[in-house]
Amino acid sequence: MQSEGGAAGAVHGALQTGALTTTFTASQGLLLMIPNMYKIAGELTSTVFHVAARAIAAHALSIYGDHQDVMAVRQTGWALLSSGSVQEAQDFAAIAQMATLKARVPFLHFFDGFRTSHEVNKIFQLMDEELRSLLDDDLVRAHRARALSPEHPVLRGSAQNPDVYFQMREAVNPYYTAVPGITQEAMDKFATVTGRRYKLFDYFGDPEAERIVVVMGSGGETVVETVKYLAAQGEKVGAMLVRLYRPFSVEHFIKALPESVQSIAVLDRTKEPGASGEPLYLDVVNALVEGERSNITTIGGRYGLSSKEFTPAMAKAVLDELRKPEPKNHFTVGIHDDVSHSSLDVNTSFIIEPEDIVRCVFFGLGADGTVGANKNSIKIIGEETDNFAQGYFYYDSKKSGTVTMSHLRFGPQPIRSPYLIELNQANFVACHQFSFLERVDMLKYAKEGAVFLLNSLYGPEEVWDHLPVEVQKEIIAKKLKFYVINGYEVAEKTGMGGRMNTIMQTAFFAISGILPREAAIAEIKHSIEKTYGKRGEAVIRKNFDAVDSTLANLHEVKAPAEITSRTTRRLPVSNEAPDFVRNVLGKIIGANGDNIPVSAFPVDGTFPTGTTQWEKRNIALEIPVWDEKLCIQCESA
Amino acid sequence: MQSEGGAAGAVHGALQTGALTTTFTASQGLLLMIPNMYKIAGELTSTVFHVAARAIAAHALSIYGDHQDVMAVRQTGWALLSSGSVQEAQDFAAIAQMATLKARVPFLHFFDGFRTSHEVNKIFQLMDEELRSLLDDDLVRAHRARALSPEHPVLRGSAQNPDVYFQMREAVNPYYTAVPGITQEAMDKFATVTGRRYKLFDYFGDPEAERIVVVMGSGGETVVETVKYLAAQGEKVGAMLVRLYRPFSVEHFIKALPESVQSIAVLDRTKEPGASGEPLYLDVVNALVEGERSNITTIGGRYGLSSKEFTPAMAKAVLDELRKPEPKNHFTVGIHDDVSHSSLDVNTSFIIEPEDIVRCVFFGLGADGTVGANKNSIKIIGEETDNFAQGYFYYDSKKSGTVTMSHLRFGPQPIRSPYLIELNQANFVACHQFSFLERVDMLKYAKEGAVFLLNSLYGPEEVWDHLPVEVQKEIIAKKLKFYVINGYEVAEKTGMGGRMNTIMQTAFFAISGILPREAAIAEIKHSIEKTYGKRGEAVIRKNFDAVDSTLANLHEVKAPAEITSRTTRRLPVSNEAPDFVRNVLGKIIGANGDNIPVSAFPVDGTFPTGTTQWEKRNIALEIPVWDEKLCIQCESA
Repeated sequence: MQSEGGAAGAVHGALQTGALTTTFTASQGLLLMIPNMYKIAGELTSTVFHVAARAIAAHALSIYGDHQDVMAVRQTGWALLSSGSVQEAQDFAAIAQMATLKARVPFLHFFDGFRTSHEVNKIFQLMDEELRSLLDDDLVRAHRARALSPEHPVLRGSAQNPDVYFQMREAVNPYYTAVPGITQEAMDKFATVTGRRYKLFDYFGDPEAERIVVVMGSGGETVVETVKYLAAQGEKVGAMLVRLYRPFSVEHFIKALPESVQSIAVLDRTKEPGASGEPLYLDVVNALVEGERSNITTIGGRYGLSSKEFTPAMAKAVLDELRKPEPKNHFTVGIHDDVSHSSLDVNTSFIIEPEDIVRCVFFGLGADGTVGANKNSIKIIGEETDNFAQGYFYYDSKKSGTVTMSHLRFGPQPIRSPYLIELNQANFVACHQFSFLERVDMLKYAKEGAVFLLNSLYGPEEVWDHLPVEVQKEIIAKKLKFYVINGYEVAEKTGMGGRMNTIMQTAFFAISGILPREAAIAEIKHSIEKTYGKRGEAVIRKNFDAVDSTLANLHEVKAPAEITSRTTRRLPVSNEAPDFVRNVLGKIIGANGDNIPVSAFPVDGTFPTGTTQWEKRNIALEIPVWDEKLCIQCESA
Repeated sequence: MQSEGGAAGAVHGALQTGALTTTFTASQGLLLMIPNMYKIAGELTSTVFHVAARAIAAHALSIYGDHQDVMAVRQTGWALLSSGSVQEAQDFAAIAQMATLKARVPFLHFFDGFRTSHEVNKIFQLMDEELRSLLDDDLVRAHRARALSPEHPVLRGSAQNPDVYFQMREAVNPYYTAVPGITQEAMDKFATVTGRRYKLFDYFGDPEAERIVVVMGSGGETVVETVKYLAAQGEKVGAMLVRLYRPFSVEHFIKALPESVQSIAVLDRTKEPGASGEPLYLDVVNALVEGERSNITTIGGRYGLSSKEFTPAMAKAVLDELRKPEPKNHFTVGIHDDVSHSSLDVNTSFIIEPEDIVRCVFFGLGADGTVGANKNSIKIIGEETDNFAQGYFYYDSKKSGTVTMSHLRFGPQPIRSPYLIELNQANFVACHQFSFLERVDMLKYAKEGAVFLLNSLYGPEEVWDHLPVEVQKEIIAKKLKFYVINGYEVAEKTGMGGRMNTIMQTAFFAISGILPREAAIAEIKHSIEKTYGKRGEAVIRKNFDAVDSTLANLHEVKAPAEITSRTTRRLPVSNEAPDFVRNVLGKIIGANGDNIPVSAFPVDGTFPTGTTQWEKRNIALEIPVWDEKLCIQCESA
């Protein structure tokens, strides 16, 4: 098939044969499906597309998450159902399928790309028999009966003239009018089977709220948590989560809106340059006018483009903006916009995560196995303990060879923090590559008294002097418990070559004490058997050896009270580099891109060339040296 | 290139080389350009796409005009400039080019597919030297200087991560903020050169208007003419034409809005099932809220999908609706919606065309040359007389072999009637195919005392008795001047075979007296030389002969005062056909599809099969008969 355009055609064709058909796509791929989507909707065809909503390439490509792609298909006549968490992504997949079979309007079920699609989270799983009971076999049969078939031929895909097209385009209206009711019915039936209750527009917070935020997707979780926190302190705030975005039911929206609301901020995770406002904002403004609540002050803003972080501090900044007599409209939050001055100020010290959540951050090298090991660890914690658990893995789109960050959270309550672990919040920081210490500020994530695990060529006695000044300072200042393991040596000795992942994972469980050490080791070995079973006994043996050797090679380092180092962290690029390389590319290389203000960037995606000469990654542990005596000068003839 | 997706890529590439590049597309073709459009806009690239805005295939395909395609790209970051007439389509093409070079935001310049793109109209033509003076060479040079070139290499098309994409997406904001001002500047400069003055939002009507319509595209012409007519009668009404739809300047909109306005109807030539309102409506609601005019009652409605007619009577129905204490929101106009009851009632007897416009309707058979001849006639009238002239050609998407209608208007004032000639309004009706009389009610277009020209096998003495009862009745009742010409015979005798076009054109000029007969014949012959010159002297000779023979064979018929016919018009389909064929397909076949209500149609584009058996077109003039004696039974062995 030629691209997602062809895939959409294949789906359209399969649906016409009566098959229950779905597809999964995002970003430009979804854009290529638009022509077929109009037809699938026009023909009132039951189907669900599941979309990990992502950015669209404009000044530059981005593979990350936002709602630009989904908003680009909102005019096609599809129902749009938004889930905001891993739990909801599962639940709404079922609800969308229930609703589309009844409504005959196709559903696009979306959730935030990466943030939700790639998050590992402990959820209540839908059992096969539950799913079976949710779906109505008669509706499945009705869908099949509408198939094109030589047994009962009908004609579809005709061409129409001005005389009749308009009338037929309006003939579907009752089906769209029915969708909100049908979707709520599906949600209610889902609730009776699973106990998890959802509404088309779900309101959270003070029932007497004066200031509320309207939002959809994973950002909704952040807003709800923030609102609960502030409401508990007596603030009259609320959050309205939009589940069913299309058809947009003004009636249900107004019904869900507390009488007390005086001002609303609508958050859109998209940007439409030149629009009078982003789409959800325009819908809410209209809903308030049609619902005779237009005395409410309404502002709209953009957040989270291309997976830009959206934190409780940002949600609070939005709610605070609503206190002002003239709140800023068409704002942005999460960046520093010193060009159009659209951005809200954010007080990043506002942190609301419960104390009983354990937070761990791991730094690895792309393709070194760190991410895989951490996915495995969070599954062990989620499945083998009573803890709820969340894992999220951040790596840049260069993939192999760059820094990866694994963010693990676990604790006694469900984890509703769809954002990275914040500065000074981690209980545990691990550095799987010694050379990163030279260039990445990792310990800024560590809270006071946190554990710092370092994969080090140097033993506990000698490592201290090899740390850059900045690292020594933070270990002392934050009173970190500092452990080293020579993973390189353990790997080599146990025949693991360069693979450090099993070793570092074992060290993590050994230090953190989440599981009793024996139980943890048993689980790790169990998962080694599962993962490497088909590679044969020898591979499993080597991994087991690595696990066993880890404990013997794991040492706590007693950090001295004073700075001894002569080295400092390297600059991301040389001071001799041109301005743009130092001030923009250097900050990006140094993992400080988030702090670059809008004014620093080219307006049209045009960059200078020849800048990789300034990016010296220095990540190799071993460097080849030319030995003249061994050289046979093979290339010199 | 693979489809319009490939074409858009080629345009993108050409623009990156610094070439001034454009393309022309519509409907699904435009949808396939969406991914590249995001990039062209994101890279701030000066270009104009010219779009004959058309419907999108949903329950059925339609090749006709509306704004569904343009509305499907409104989120891409392009400026959208709407022209509403042939004159404006020329003028705005230039204005868009001027503005994009200055603004660096790409422009999509659109006009109504078919209604504007295929209308022939006498316009003030932009001369090459005028166009030259409108474009700033420095801006062209600046565009070229931004080309990708090995002489001054830059990097474009990068991939960005969450750290910086959002900031760069906001870096373009000042460029969008500047577009409205730059576009108005271009319009002003255009006015100084040409005298034709436009505004971003052009208000017409009573400066103290209480009820106004907001609209864009060719429907705006109809609304303006209606408003002028009603305002002249003292009604406090107005029309706001939207020229620059994106970026949507709330400030300019509010400034153009009279203080006196109490209610607004927003007309959208698109449909977005499930939206809380169509796009222009949502923008206007928001503009009124942001512009602190939210006390104005606002309703929105759909019209003109798939080139559905939009007439002054419909515009008046919309303005009348605004008088009601609770006007209907989300209405439709131009159809009878007996399902959702969205449609407004229209009094079709409301006709506002000036008396001094001459209106002519011609019925031909697809591919019989009628449309071509009429295009030629309207050009002769426009160029060789002081008249303003308009030609519009309606044929269904079956093309060859179906009825074509040519609608010609001319008169002393510019023609601003972007709709078909209405019932009882034509001064001249021509039937180029005798057999049509049996099945199409043509004379319903004729006004009292109009001329009726019939291409007839029967001479002036015998033709009367061969007319169906209904035709005789209308000729008598409307006191028509009735002419016949045996075009079939003239064509055969002059060696033209089945080509009737030159003959019927000559007859039209001979009867209508628009030009002196000799002058008209000279012009027809001149155009024959231009059209057929390259086919050689013999073809020209035959056409000249046909012209000369026409006059001798053109006869007025003195219609008797009484009905003599024994035949009536045929039913479009047999009475024995199934219900759906009689009530839906039969009406479509009988050119009455416009009157079919919404409830008659399938909801999902699914039709019964085997229905062509009921469609008997009977259009052949000669029918083969099997002669047993001549038959050699070649297939019987």
